[in-house]
Amino acid sequence: MSAVKVNKKRSIEDTPIVFIGAGNLATNLAKALYCKGFRIVQVYSRTEEAASALARQVEADYTTNLEEINTSARLYVVALKDSAFEELLPAIVAGKPKDALMVHTAGSLPMSIWQGQTEHYGVFYPMQTFSKQRETEFTEIPFFIEASSPTDVELLKNIAGTLSERVYEADSEQRKSLHLAAVFCCNFTNHMYALSAKLLKKYDLPFDVMLPLIDETARKVHELEPKDAQTGPAIRYDENVIGNHLKMLSDEPGMQKLYELISRSIYENNG
Amino acid sequence: MSAVKVNKKRSIEDTPIVFIGAGNLATNLAKALYCKGFRIVQVYSRTEEAASALARQVEADYTTNLEEINTSARLYVVALKDSAFEELLPAIVAGKPKDALMVHTAGSLPMSIWQGQTEHYGVFYPMQTFSKQRETEFTEIPFFIEASSPTDVELLKNIAGTLSERVYEADSEQRKSLHLAAVFCCNFTNHMYALSAKLLKKYDLPFDVMLPLIDETARKVHELEPKDAQTGPAIRYDENVIGNHLKMLSDEPGMQKLYELISRSIYENNG
Repeated sequence: MSAVKVNKKRSIEDTPIVFIGAGNLATNLAKALYCKGFRIVQVYSRTEEAASALARQVEADYTTNLEEINTSARLYVVALKDSAFEELLPAIVAGKPKDALMVHTAGSLPMSIWQGQTEHYGVFYPMQTFSKQRETEFTEIPFFIEASSPTDVELLKNIAGTLSERVYEADSEQRKSLHLAAVFCCNFTNHMYALSAKLLKKYDLPFDVMLPLIDETARKVHELEPKDAQTGPAIRYDENVIGNHLKMLSDEPGMQKLYELISRSIYENNG
Repeated sequence: MSAVKVNKKRSIEDTPIVFIGAGNLATNLAKALYCKGFRIVQVYSRTEEAASALARQVEADYTTNLEEINTSARLYVVALKDSAFEELLPAIVAGKPKDALMVHTAGSLPMSIWQGQTEHYGVFYPMQTFSKQRETEFTEIPFFIEASSPTDVELLKNIAGTLSERVYEADSEQRKSLHLAAVFCCNFTNHMYALSAKLLKKYDLPFDVMLPLIDETARKVHELEPKDAQTGPAIRYDENVIGNHLKMLSDEPGMQKLYELISRSIYENNG
């Protein structure tokens, strides 16, 4: 039994993979797969700088020409901006082997975008925030898998399973919902940090004094529902404190407006 | 030298302390001081339930009557809502010993609120989000200290120093700025989590799938400036994704408005 498992694992890692895209997600995912022993055969990017930088790190070839994309890979991972992907889709599928599996990594795009373009397709969505400057630990990242056939689902689950302990199947509708929720939890949260950093810079105070607060705010929602973890002046709409803060933001009308709306939203959600 | 240090420590922990207020901050701070060996002699709260619950945990007496507040303590820690504090201030100082040190714990209130009311006063502000349901680890919490005399500053610094490695002096103006920045980093961030949780509930998806993303978003800003850590559709104002998300929020006009404003703010800050 265990020998079979080892065999199966080895065969997965032999899957030759092409990465189409060399942005934050592609870079982190390709490097993680490379570290697990997968063969990344080629990296495509519109820009040579991005393509060669990633290719070097995963011992792959690279190209900036869509027509030169390797046609003998088993798996094509497309990690492009949504708009670029839609535009390049016909060129991406052109000339690829019929049994190759093509996946995109976007939370926001339905699987149906592949329909009629190729035979084996799917979605391989690691729900995480990736930056090139920071290596991501994949073990706890939830992967959401969808594919055109049960065999393809199985292959993607096995690949994701080499990286993470949290691999789920999710349809396009669920993925769309997760992606929207993730924008609030991640992108908007990070922007709150950024606005805070902007204020502190103005006041000549260091941002790192906020880190224990940021960490505890994140830790709390492991135990409490976010609604129950809420603190601060907006819960009871403390006019005094909020009025003072709005005054302090009078030279930042954008932030002032946001401060007021978010405070009202907190108040209404805690009523 | 080390014997002197021990003596000094013992004498600090002998400081009899009265807590006025039994909310989230008072509860966590009183319990932490109690664990370090401080003597909490009494807890005041408007409600018997809150006063007795905290008093029990720190082996203190309690009262719900301002006139019955212990008059022989060395330190009075006032942790009330700003509006309640301003209202109760005359009754709080009445009849207390001249050499007693009175502090409030609010980021938002200036130290000057004490002026003319009592002789020794200050501010003892632990910048953190506290909930009664969760015990807080104080070691990394930044404490911001301000007091009416250098001796009082010293006493407060020593007390804070038994709990945390990060004790700073900060004037009222700096504290006001820190508090505003903290509202963004903590209260508004938590609200982003809460809105995300609300969406997931509607879609019948579990919130805990967001935790790895929440944790990584917090971890990233230990290494990168928040602005450099930003990801997601708003950086380049991706009309496709944003348009779809706004449509998905059409039955939540408040969230829809927030989504749009925060996305515009991200776009403008990354320009």
